[in-house]
Amino acid sequence: MTTSLRETILQLFRSTPTGFVSGAQISRTLGVSRTAVWKQIEKLRELGYCIEAVPSKGYRLMQSPDVLLAEELSAGASGQLIGCRIRTLETTDSTNLQAMALGDAGAPEGLVVIADRQTAGKGRLGRSWISPGGVNLYLSVLLRPPVLPAAAPQLTFLSALAVCRTIEDVSDLQPQVKWPNDILLGGRKVAGLLNEMSSETDRVNHVVLGIGINLNVMRAELPTQVRYPATSIAIETGRPVSRLEFTTLLLRRLDELYAAYLVEGGRPLLTAWEAYCELTGQMIEVDCQQRRIHGQMAGIDDDGALLVKTSAGVERILAGDVRPARR
Amino acid sequence: MTTSLRETILQLFRSTPTGFVSGAQISRTLGVSRTAVWKQIEKLRELGYCIEAVPSKGYRLMQSPDVLLAEELSAGASGQLIGCRIRTLETTDSTNLQAMALGDAGAPEGLVVIADRQTAGKGRLGRSWISPGGVNLYLSVLLRPPVLPAAAPQLTFLSALAVCRTIEDVSDLQPQVKWPNDILLGGRKVAGLLNEMSSETDRVNHVVLGIGINLNVMRAELPTQVRYPATSIAIETGRPVSRLEFTTLLLRRLDELYAAYLVEGGRPLLTAWEAYCELTGQMIEVDCQQRRIHGQMAGIDDDGALLVKTSAGVERILAGDVRPARR
Repeated sequence: MTTSLRETILQLFRSTPTGFVSGAQISRTLGVSRTAVWKQIEKLRELGYCIEAVPSKGYRLMQSPDVLLAEELSAGASGQLIGCRIRTLETTDSTNLQAMALGDAGAPEGLVVIADRQTAGKGRLGRSWISPGGVNLYLSVLLRPPVLPAAAPQLTFLSALAVCRTIEDVSDLQPQVKWPNDILLGGRKVAGLLNEMSSETDRVNHVVLGIGINLNVMRAELPTQVRYPATSIAIETGRPVSRLEFTTLLLRRLDELYAAYLVEGGRPLLTAWEAYCELTGQMIEVDCQQRRIHGQMAGIDDDGALLVKTSAGVERILAGDVRPARR
Repeated sequence: MTTSLRETILQLFRSTPTGFVSGAQISRTLGVSRTAVWKQIEKLRELGYCIEAVPSKGYRLMQSPDVLLAEELSAGASGQLIGCRIRTLETTDSTNLQAMALGDAGAPEGLVVIADRQTAGKGRLGRSWISPGGVNLYLSVLLRPPVLPAAAPQLTFLSALAVCRTIEDVSDLQPQVKWPNDILLGGRKVAGLLNEMSSETDRVNHVVLGIGINLNVMRAELPTQVRYPATSIAIETGRPVSRLEFTTLLLRRLDELYAAYLVEGGRPLLTAWEAYCELTGQMIEVDCQQRRIHGQMAGIDDDGALLVKTSAGVERILAGDVRPARR
């Protein structure tokens, strides 16, 4: 993963004690012309960086904007694995597609792909995930867990927990989870998870944890024709969320949960997830491929399958859409 | 999938009632020069095609060699899905890698990739599959079954059945199966299966059935340092197998088994597989990742997991290497 010119310049600003870096110094370090340096400084200013130019002293970085550059994120990352390598993209089809392709090509575990905007954001079951630029977070993590393919669905619960805890880190909101892969605030969807896997019959090649979170998108910008009502953290709190801060904290949560998972396995994740699930014990309806099931939500089993207590006994459901039962 | 010039020429030979096709006619049909036609005819002769040239009449195909060209195979294919589209390669890294990449790119279900030789043939758990050119069969089938990821391992048993039945079609040999993915003749490995999958948590994107079969490789050419003794159909019968005939029959078997699977599900496959498994009821040793299990092989369950009756009860094993127990 090569660091871009812009990221190297930001690195120079941060590593200099006086704060000032001369154009000549940048030009020398990067091995490019003074004109090229000037163009990169202009580009950083366009991105929202406030950069002062003082004659005979050089450039100085006064303020960073809320953009997601790999360099900014790495500066805040403290993890052992997840977040040590970050690839940020302004626009991409889908961060999951990119991360899966990088996985196929042998990229190392822990690699994170983040896009400012997705043109073909993916939801589960071939649905789309609305992904406007500049306001939200679209992130995919490449992992190579030493588990059997049948255990990999547990990692969806890891993503869910990381998102819930990060929402708690940055706000007083109380997130809930909806099986299998949604995060809700006040009953409205704020985040969706899409895990994808490449596997052999008895070995996982790689897994990608896909996470899409509505951070700052406002109500007027949300699509009206959706399967489930949506919201954002900013709508719920009434103030914007720093994308940089949220992403940094989320990467730390993911890293600590994955480290624990490798030692303790999936059961603690599932138990912690259940504590965020307000439908547990309530009457629900589940639309499966062929039929609709009514019953009481009885929790999830070790494979992450939904357990529903019906008049005929406990049904074990591997895929479906859950709603509270109509009264 | 575009048809190559050579395959179009073979198609012309087959479709003409007299058997004769003039150089001018080939040149016109293909839209290439007479010199280019002559070069393709020479190349076909190098590949083993016996082509007669009669002045004022043209070319005539006298005999086809035992090479695997998509056109030759398609001519014999009768299936509805598997084998309707075939991509043949002289040399590739691994037909599974190629088929998985084609699946990622959206290629249609039923596509078959065949290579004459593999430079990085894959066995399960990252092992290699020795793949010399010109003698054996290395084939991958791309499928998009409408099943949950947890059910996909059943398709390994579909491949196994197709291979066993094709061996019976072309010989009097009695193939046996070894869990999870080997085909044996007289206790020696003749074929290996490697299924790979791209999936979401609750949806299969695509599955590739990888099949490697030792058809004509001779004893002296087999590697000596192997995990399990190997053999080939030709070693066991004492006469060569037509690669073209075997492949054509195998594609038909795969197609008919997959059509049945889509209607009846996996249980009939598992039952039929068990009939080929001579270890059923016998004492076995299974090397799993962490430990070795001793017990009586009790069959396979609906997910394709191995059931072993031990002193502590029935163990359900998802991954491991099976051997008859040492006396």
